[in-house]
Amino acid sequence: MDDRRLHRIYLDQINGTPLLPQASEAMKEAWGKGGNPSSPHAEGRAANGLKERARVGVASLVRARGEEITFTSSGTEANAWALTGLTKAGTRKGNHLVVSAVEHPSILQTARRMEKEGWKVTAVPVDRAGRVDPAAVEAALTPETALVSIQWANSEVGTLQPVGELARRVKARGILFHTDAVAAAGQLPIDLKAVPADALSLAANTFGGPPGAGALFVRKGVRILPLFVGGAQEDGRRAGTENLAGIVGMGEAARVMARELPGRIPGWIGLRDRLSRGIESRLPEARLNGHPTERLPGHLSVSLPGADAEALVLALDREGISVGIGSACTARAMKASHVLRAMGADDAHALGTITLTLGVETTEEEIDRVLEILPRVAAGQIKGGLTPAGSSRDSR
Amino acid sequence: MDDRRLHRIYLDQINGTPLLPQASEAMKEAWGKGGNPSSPHAEGRAANGLKERARVGVASLVRARGEEITFTSSGTEANAWALTGLTKAGTRKGNHLVVSAVEHPSILQTARRMEKEGWKVTAVPVDRAGRVDPAAVEAALTPETALVSIQWANSEVGTLQPVGELARRVKARGILFHTDAVAAAGQLPIDLKAVPADALSLAANTFGGPPGAGALFVRKGVRILPLFVGGAQEDGRRAGTENLAGIVGMGEAARVMARELPGRIPGWIGLRDRLSRGIESRLPEARLNGHPTERLPGHLSVSLPGADAEALVLALDREGISVGIGSACTARAMKASHVLRAMGADDAHALGTITLTLGVETTEEEIDRVLEILPRVAAGQIKGGLTPAGSSRDSR
Repeated sequence: MDDRRLHRIYLDQINGTPLLPQASEAMKEAWGKGGNPSSPHAEGRAANGLKERARVGVASLVRARGEEITFTSSGTEANAWALTGLTKAGTRKGNHLVVSAVEHPSILQTARRMEKEGWKVTAVPVDRAGRVDPAAVEAALTPETALVSIQWANSEVGTLQPVGELARRVKARGILFHTDAVAAAGQLPIDLKAVPADALSLAANTFGGPPGAGALFVRKGVRILPLFVGGAQEDGRRAGTENLAGIVGMGEAARVMARELPGRIPGWIGLRDRLSRGIESRLPEARLNGHPTERLPGHLSVSLPGADAEALVLALDREGISVGIGSACTARAMKASHVLRAMGADDAHALGTITLTLGVETTEEEIDRVLEILPRVAAGQIKGGLTPAGSSRDSR
Repeated sequence: MDDRRLHRIYLDQINGTPLLPQASEAMKEAWGKGGNPSSPHAEGRAANGLKERARVGVASLVRARGEEITFTSSGTEANAWALTGLTKAGTRKGNHLVVSAVEHPSILQTARRMEKEGWKVTAVPVDRAGRVDPAAVEAALTPETALVSIQWANSEVGTLQPVGELARRVKARGILFHTDAVAAAGQLPIDLKAVPADALSLAANTFGGPPGAGALFVRKGVRILPLFVGGAQEDGRRAGTENLAGIVGMGEAARVMARELPGRIPGWIGLRDRLSRGIESRLPEARLNGHPTERLPGHLSVSLPGADAEALVLALDREGISVGIGSACTARAMKASHVLRAMGADDAHALGTITLTLGVETTEEEIDRVLEILPRVAAGQIKGGLTPAGSSRDSR
């Protein structure tokens, strides 16, 4: 950590924020307390107390109640659970699911599985900025539609969806609405009092909590079937011994973020604009993806058509700069991002795309250093012939 | 932790072992390294290196290869995944599943769900010691049997199953064999070179690792469908950002246990025998459950017919002693254990049952203190009328 703090510039927050010190401290204390939250003895009660405090912390980040939060092992689990659990609970009959074309793969691939089990799935297209049209979503609804799942923000290009309007339109038709807020949670205030979503997915490691800790908000009164059975944990909603340290870290990070996020946003926007203006002036061939204003404050997606994104990431890495490569979840299988393709990008554009995401610790000096190094590295990549991804990997 | 170490006696290891110091240290270091194991930059590679080291550690505990270990969020997830993933992979046609009547609820309730989806499930009975008869398991096999899942050891009564023989008989018929080794892993050597199981479930918090970290061993060449899709993590077998600290802690605990376990077993057996002899002489009404010799070395299940197990646990808790109450997973919904019922116990017997499980730190002095306190507490429970569970809870 010290090494990175001193020498490296970490602009891959969307694929994992550094752990906030408050979260780290709370986690260390949780270990000391030990115990299984389901046990009635002192150690169990202590563990349970920590867990319930964390639940309230996570709820505070999205303006929900503690009882509406269930801990999961990741945003991916929360997404898989939302899609299968909400539909299997049978609140509304019908076998039609509506998603957007730019959802995270954990939504799209779970939807594809449901298709094999007899579900009909509509993937609503997006415009060149990556946004769905609420009227198009509404037009996709049928009497058979049981659930609509559309993300709050896109992790690859940073575009925000009009989730408030989407949720209101979908709810007005008596249909369940889920939103994947994993990419949004550390960057934007999320207010579930204003957005009437039935369910919302979170991952701790997008807002300063540990990786491998997630949560699903399920609005009070909404039925959901568990994914894991055979235990009374999480009020019977998710069987399995809890990752207590992860839960405690998530709760503490959420508490800190709920308090500090509003104050951080102007700074992120300023740094991001400095970065985007700098890139535009120094790299005229670069293209910035996503919506110009309706976007995550600390997020930039940059395409250098003709470059190889992985080679670019590795070249920047050698200069001490960490950036993202589309979605880290699928990064090791290089193919054109489904998000960029849905936005109309061709392969040359999509395969040369990197993401730069700013965090709590990002400084103006770091941005300026990136602006100094990126054009040189990019020029090497584009003009000097591309370093084959394979050989770069071997040299690790 | 110090508090407990100094003043409390923790005999509820089966529901969560204290974190080994080596695991704790490794976890703290993992945080410092940060990073998403799927990212190609320096932070990502460091995280990935830690994860792969942990995988080899876990493999060493069960004599498997690293590539045969996939990390999960709990033993419950490993069990749910084994049942659904092995059967859906369609290695063998047929819709018949064989389990034992004393499996963990995560197996039995997942099986019940599969029944609703059209599967036939046979639950093979056990004898009064809680053991299945391999001939009875074999007799249950049909040409439609796709999978047999029988535990290595029972967490509630400590009885071991003849898994080696079971696996050989089932494999000889060309049927897949899974075993839930969650209760066994911290207490007994597990040798997957000697036991030809196709899959085996583990949970870190039964062998000194953190709660909320599990793994599924899947033998090389055996097909399994993922539970979570939409990411390339774990070689595509389990999508979702990894709980890196949990994984690292699990790997380190496994490494320590693989080394130290054989040397600890004689001590556990000695302490357990001291405890069981002491209980038999001081509490003639007590009944010890499970097999007398084919059992976990540090595990004792004691029934005090007529007592209320939860009241007993809380009364012992007030004396500074933590013991288990059937399965912690279902402890908050008090009803007679399905395990004890399958072994022929009546309700009065089953509802008065506690488990005492010894750990790395258990001492002779602690055992003697339990033997001094337990008879007094038990006498108060049985003679003085039972404290209603509800009022005990309220007084927490």
